[in-house]
Amino acid sequence: SPAGMINLGMASLRLYAGLVGYPSGFCARSLRTLSGMTVSQGTRDYNPKQMAIREKVFNTIISCFKRHGAENIDTPVFELKETLTGKYGEDSKLIYDLKDQGGELLSLRYDLTVPFARYLAMNKVTNIKRYHIAKVYRRDNPAMTRGRYREFYQCDFDIAGQYDPMIPDAECLKIVHEILSELELGDFRIKVNDRRILDGMFAVCGVPDDKFRTICSTVDKLDKVSWEDVRSEMVKEKGLSEEAADQIGQYVSLQGGMDLAERLLQDAKMSQSKQACAGLTDMKQLFSYLQLFQVTDKVVFDLSLARGLDYYTGVIYEAILTQTGPVPVAAAQNGAGEKAEEGVSVGSVAGGGRYDGLVGMFDPKGRKVPCVGVSIGIERVFSIMEQKASAEKVRTTETQVMVASAQKNLLEERLRLTAELWNAGIKAEVMYKKNPKLLSQLQHCEDSGIPLVAILGEQELKDGVVKLRTVHSREEIDVSRDKLVEEIKRRTSDV
Amino acid sequence: SPAGMINLGMASLRLYAGLVGYPSGFCARSLRTLSGMTVSQGTRDYNPKQMAIREKVFNTIISCFKRHGAENIDTPVFELKETLTGKYGEDSKLIYDLKDQGGELLSLRYDLTVPFARYLAMNKVTNIKRYHIAKVYRRDNPAMTRGRYREFYQCDFDIAGQYDPMIPDAECLKIVHEILSELELGDFRIKVNDRRILDGMFAVCGVPDDKFRTICSTVDKLDKVSWEDVRSEMVKEKGLSEEAADQIGQYVSLQGGMDLAERLLQDAKMSQSKQACAGLTDMKQLFSYLQLFQVTDKVVFDLSLARGLDYYTGVIYEAILTQTGPVPVAAAQNGAGEKAEEGVSVGSVAGGGRYDGLVGMFDPKGRKVPCVGVSIGIERVFSIMEQKASAEKVRTTETQVMVASAQKNLLEERLRLTAELWNAGIKAEVMYKKNPKLLSQLQHCEDSGIPLVAILGEQELKDGVVKLRTVHSREEIDVSRDKLVEEIKRRTSDV
Repeated sequence: SPAGMINLGMASLRLYAGLVGYPSGFCARSLRTLSGMTVSQGTRDYNPKQMAIREKVFNTIISCFKRHGAENIDTPVFELKETLTGKYGEDSKLIYDLKDQGGELLSLRYDLTVPFARYLAMNKVTNIKRYHIAKVYRRDNPAMTRGRYREFYQCDFDIAGQYDPMIPDAECLKIVHEILSELELGDFRIKVNDRRILDGMFAVCGVPDDKFRTICSTVDKLDKVSWEDVRSEMVKEKGLSEEAADQIGQYVSLQGGMDLAERLLQDAKMSQSKQACAGLTDMKQLFSYLQLFQVTDKVVFDLSLARGLDYYTGVIYEAILTQTGPVPVAAAQNGAGEKAEEGVSVGSVAGGGRYDGLVGMFDPKGRKVPCVGVSIGIERVFSIMEQKASAEKVRTTETQVMVASAQKNLLEERLRLTAELWNAGIKAEVMYKKNPKLLSQLQHCEDSGIPLVAILGEQELKDGVVKLRTVHSREEIDVSRDKLVEEIKRRTSDV
Repeated sequence: SPAGMINLGMASLRLYAGLVGYPSGFCARSLRTLSGMTVSQGTRDYNPKQMAIREKVFNTIISCFKRHGAENIDTPVFELKETLTGKYGEDSKLIYDLKDQGGELLSLRYDLTVPFARYLAMNKVTNIKRYHIAKVYRRDNPAMTRGRYREFYQCDFDIAGQYDPMIPDAECLKIVHEILSELELGDFRIKVNDRRILDGMFAVCGVPDDKFRTICSTVDKLDKVSWEDVRSEMVKEKGLSEEAADQIGQYVSLQGGMDLAERLLQDAKMSQSKQACAGLTDMKQLFSYLQLFQVTDKVVFDLSLARGLDYYTGVIYEAILTQTGPVPVAAAQNGAGEKAEEGVSVGSVAGGGRYDGLVGMFDPKGRKVPCVGVSIGIERVFSIMEQKASAEKVRTTETQVMVASAQKNLLEERLRLTAELWNAGIKAEVMYKKNPKLLSQLQHCEDSGIPLVAILGEQELKDGVVKLRTVHSREEIDVSRDKLVEEIKRRTSDV
């Protein structure tokens, strides 16, 4: 009974009362109740097809990280609760805590950035280029986050160390460009800004110091709501003067490239802020490196990009897909991480920035390690890939050959040959039946995409050969047993 | 200060008062206090060197699983608390619970077997051959578990489905044989027994039905303590008669192969038990398949093998290393899983068995799905590999070439060439400095094992060449810029 099923392994079961139209089949662990209302939950199993897609996406991303010389690290799924405290602003309420069963208070990691900073401080690492791919946990408010998972992957690449300005920052953007190009998700744009430019802009527009953060998070909504709504929130809810709001409005509508950075350096108001000038000078430098990397076709300096988290100190960026098809409900999931929480474009697939102060928060002597990094919104990528693959057949194994027989009493011969193939490094399967029908053996090959069948019979055994059948063409040839491994390798060299 | 450090990200910090001799450097997150006493904790970070070793081990294991046609699945790190309830006997106290923050009660997974069974029942999967590699969580009693981690990997391979007897079971043992051979951990032995043989033996020896489990867990200690101690526990603590104990003693000292199974089938007492006969007949069949798979050199039918967990219903097995060097304290960690908890040999590196009843516990109609599987004790393997590698240099990146310069003001040219190489799929690094010294660039190559350096200078730029230096021989040749990618690929084709 469906009601009975609800008790089976349903972690974080939640009723989404308003989501009757939730697409079925997307969430592997979504269930329909008798009334037809959709029941969903915060986590999902990955079935073999989803895992095959996941593996492909990971391979693309990891290859890119390795091409850039990154090392790999891993940290525990839980941290001391106090490690996470005070790092995520009001999102801290989304942190999963472990029950106090004696010992330290622990929480599940909320992102990979804070554990990375803790790792650097604890191990006194002052420079490293590393990637980290792992699951993070957020008790998202179901009403607000249709289709978001509470357990999702982050794919982070970060460069820690004291270097000349903007070189590692440019490499992070190059990486985003490479990954999004290789994943073939359609056209994309990478928006770039700088926390210092934003702060400088707020200062010269007359925003009081203590309102920078709150005004910043209002600006961050510009990719979802109109300027009129943003202006109204600034003035009516946050008490900003109309003049200040209008001045901000003029700046945040600006988009461009190196030219815009140069123009703003000459801007009468903006040039009064030291902070803004530092940010703009770096922005010029960044674009000069991006030109060398040949990625300026996709990168735009956009003064409306704010991003939520407090820990950014310099350049910030976010990549969005510009030609998505019908967006699945679940696409709102954004693994791009931290800041994508606020100010998320529906199409956001990567984000990051520079955070020079975070490591120092974990060092007893407050020693700083400058860092810049990027997080790929891999769950969004998975759902796009899964949608693309929904009609296609995706192989979930890599088996090259099925060892079969048309005759009875040949189980032992099949097992013997299968072991020979395994020992020679061939990926081989055999049915766990004494006398399976040839048809069911061939059907299994069709179903799971196994390209070859090695068929044994009394005659073949006598002749010292194996009948090698190509599944798609049904062509069969006798291959001498001692040439079989070689022949299978030759025919499946692309597997 | 060390005292200050203890507050940094120390999840599950525990004082191991008695472990002053704990080997330093093993646990990445172990710290020494001022008094010299070792402080350890339940989890660890993996640094890049450890990750490189981990990746190598995983690749070996995953290749083997794929060679056998296994699919891959993944499940969430937490399950409904009730999913785990009643599956682990008294070990249930080791389960990590999440704090009740509203919603369902959740627990971190304790192994991968119960989530697998839940997955099969929930998705109505009746046959699958799958592997699952993921971390599991146990609040182990630190006093009892020197060096064990509270977060550790399990590598599980299971075959679910109704098949002819012992064929999938034999494949699991073949897999253990392949993996342990390929990992080159030294000689090993795989002990095999059957729950039905044990139960039949207890019955014919006069053990009361309600004492089967507790006597079984006493037998399970035979790999650690003498028969005298085991006998004494049976008689004095568990109230077994001396006659019954002595009869058990005669059986559990037996070891052999197919011959032993045949002998016991003729045994006057043993043959009175239907259960024992069923197990012994299957054991004979198993050995006949193991002969075809050519793995009987390492497999021994051992009547003292018991294994702890309740859910086994048929064949059980455990692999041990027989020629370990100095065993690190941490080697007691046993990822082999469930049952290795009790009855663990120090050298145990894999274990598993048949569990035909577990899936039915999660199905509303109690439909059974027979399963057999094996869990590789990967943490034990890691620690052996880490020890082996402790003196060696292990590469933590795959970088093929460093783009360098001996002259000043060539940053832009270096970045341009680096991007060319990245775009051609070459793994390349460049220093994030405007004018790094050649020596420091070469030193970085030495340190991280980068085999080639592409050196740019004014003259090379004029001539359209790059000076390609082989790090180990210091040999340098000029390579035409348009032949550079090809030349790097040729020279690093083994990377």
